[in-house]
Amino acid sequence: MHTTVGIIGGGPAGLLLARLLHRAGVDSVVLERRDRAYVEQRQRAGILEQATVDVLRAAGAGDRLDREGLVHHGIELRFGRRAHRVDFPSLAQGRTVTVYAQTEVVKDLIALQLDEGGPLLFEAEVHAIEGADGERPLVRYCHEGREQTLTCEYVVGCDGFHGIARGAVPEGLRTTYERTYPYSWLGILAEAPPVYDELVYAHSERGFALASMRTPAVSRLYLQVPNGTDPADWPDERIWDELDTRFALDAEPDWRLERGPVTQKSVLPMRSWVTEPMRHGRLFLAGDAAHIVPPTGAKGLNLAAADVVVLARALAHRHATGSDELLEAYSDTCLRRVWRAEHFSYAMTTTLHTDPGQSPFDTRLQLSQLDRIASSPHAAAELAENYTGLPLPATPPAW
Amino acid sequence: MHTTVGIIGGGPAGLLLARLLHRAGVDSVVLERRDRAYVEQRQRAGILEQATVDVLRAAGAGDRLDREGLVHHGIELRFGRRAHRVDFPSLAQGRTVTVYAQTEVVKDLIALQLDEGGPLLFEAEVHAIEGADGERPLVRYCHEGREQTLTCEYVVGCDGFHGIARGAVPEGLRTTYERTYPYSWLGILAEAPPVYDELVYAHSERGFALASMRTPAVSRLYLQVPNGTDPADWPDERIWDELDTRFALDAEPDWRLERGPVTQKSVLPMRSWVTEPMRHGRLFLAGDAAHIVPPTGAKGLNLAAADVVVLARALAHRHATGSDELLEAYSDTCLRRVWRAEHFSYAMTTTLHTDPGQSPFDTRLQLSQLDRIASSPHAAAELAENYTGLPLPATPPAW
Repeated sequence: MHTTVGIIGGGPAGLLLARLLHRAGVDSVVLERRDRAYVEQRQRAGILEQATVDVLRAAGAGDRLDREGLVHHGIELRFGRRAHRVDFPSLAQGRTVTVYAQTEVVKDLIALQLDEGGPLLFEAEVHAIEGADGERPLVRYCHEGREQTLTCEYVVGCDGFHGIARGAVPEGLRTTYERTYPYSWLGILAEAPPVYDELVYAHSERGFALASMRTPAVSRLYLQVPNGTDPADWPDERIWDELDTRFALDAEPDWRLERGPVTQKSVLPMRSWVTEPMRHGRLFLAGDAAHIVPPTGAKGLNLAAADVVVLARALAHRHATGSDELLEAYSDTCLRRVWRAEHFSYAMTTTLHTDPGQSPFDTRLQLSQLDRIASSPHAAAELAENYTGLPLPATPPAW
Repeated sequence: MHTTVGIIGGGPAGLLLARLLHRAGVDSVVLERRDRAYVEQRQRAGILEQATVDVLRAAGAGDRLDREGLVHHGIELRFGRRAHRVDFPSLAQGRTVTVYAQTEVVKDLIALQLDEGGPLLFEAEVHAIEGADGERPLVRYCHEGREQTLTCEYVVGCDGFHGIARGAVPEGLRTTYERTYPYSWLGILAEAPPVYDELVYAHSERGFALASMRTPAVSRLYLQVPNGTDPADWPDERIWDELDTRFALDAEPDWRLERGPVTQKSVLPMRSWVTEPMRHGRLFLAGDAAHIVPPTGAKGLNLAAADVVVLARALAHRHATGSDELLEAYSDTCLRRVWRAEHFSYAMTTTLHTDPGQSPFDTRLQLSQLDRIASSPHAAAELAENYTGLPLPATPPAW
């Protein structure tokens, strides 16, 4: 098989890229290792930045998002047993975020791709990328029990942190930056209506907690736990009790979360990680294949969307003009945004979590910074601008 | 001897407090361990926040400051071999800072005190504070070879980090917060005109450097060095060469600092440290006796001034009305500002210095944050507001 752009990975990055390229008249093939049901149920992020929503709409994937997505105008911070709301539109030029789970984005994009896009192959496992630094890269994959090859002009690795695409960049040419954290998140999905209309981020002496949601009937709740925690050690009641404790407010002593059946429970690691550059010859890396952020700032999916917007634009530019100019700028363009998000995610994480090794001095610094966000418009705006997301480097054209 | 307020320590905090109390009609006695010449030559800070300048003026100590102080409207940041200026007035409600060395502030306040204030005893070494939790505290000190006692209504410890006043708060009643840093500053005074009108803060792969000044003819320059550095290992030429390297800009390859005779050379440790509370009965702690910041944010002297403004106002209020209300709020009022300054000083320090243990990831975060300050008005305003100093909790009355 031959195509213009071979896309490895049918998660949100790969699917959105295929969609944007299709709208720009550029052929692509998407190879996804898993089956469709798996991909459509993989629990991941749930907060879309304003720019991500705008891109999905521009790509024709905004209908259900606009009907079912929950627009949020702020978040609540809790610290020192007090609550403080950060209002996004007034602090960040009118921007908001939208709660719409990654699973739903993926379902919408898969349906569009199968309906009117290029080939999207499930259970197609790539095992080699060859000739990335030449004129005609080749992707070897296994599909329906047979070895296959895909030749293409460009290959894009959207296959995540554990994917193989990154390995096609010679080791001597890439630099890896990494930070691990001495804590994880225990996350649950619960059939319980969220108590608040917006997300609540809590700093407490017992560790961080986050109250998020998937729909008006389904809560998504997280607790900071030690690395290596076994979810089996956390029966549902223990989780609810601990959430109540960490969200406790002096002003509302009788307040409790609304409880309901826990339908999913898992432990999520926290990692900051970047590989540079994001391009090698005709191979491009996008999304989690190139960078990971801890989930505190809700940046992972949004960074992936930003990468593929930059890349789709560069590929469309090449297709229309023959110029490599934007493709050559791809890595630098993306990395500036990536490092901003890495810093923000790191700062949100380390300001809100309790490091088991932290001193009382460190705790006071955290509280002083949270207090500053609650009292200074500039500090609050820094949070709001980063959280709702920076504008994309260029407005996406009408795809 | 008896007085209303016994002040231990004749540095800027103790002298300014005595001055403010004098203007409010409250008696005080200042006991300083060193002789006058020593105190007047002790090299310390040199950057006065807007509020500190306002207070010195209101206290009648602004004449020479207004004539000789250098008003600065911004600072320059250097990182990645590029320069970026942060403009204070446009970002921080018109505020500026003033370069006027602590030695000069001290000289002005000593002259005023000796001319029209209460007793200021040099070479008066306090060795005990008794009855701080009672109605009539007593200070035992040695002066002119004799043991003396000072009875007072209130005692204020302005005797710095190594002073004895803090020890009069029972250990079980105080909590100490501390952080040390794996680097120090090598500081020089040089008879060389500063190359720039404003301070230059440089992040470089070889470590932090700061170009400051004392007067239009005297430069004050600092280099990050490892803890335990012996100044003797840094001959003058090595210092100048290293400064040139750390301040280097791609855009000005031929740029060099103007060199001149080095008249002082010393190594300064870096420490963050706070003791709580800042009050025990009728004993109050102010300035370095209660908190230390690393010098990067230029906050030490300014925090001391803010403490004594709050305290002088509270003592004057008590004197005028008999109410302890403001005295009881003293510790909490000061500590909120103290922790803000601790956070800012920590953030400035860790963003600009190279920790010997830092990873390439950490370096990228530093550069991303500096890049953010250079590109976001809110991030720049956060720096400018903190650097020029928050407004005092209450406007000082006309003392």
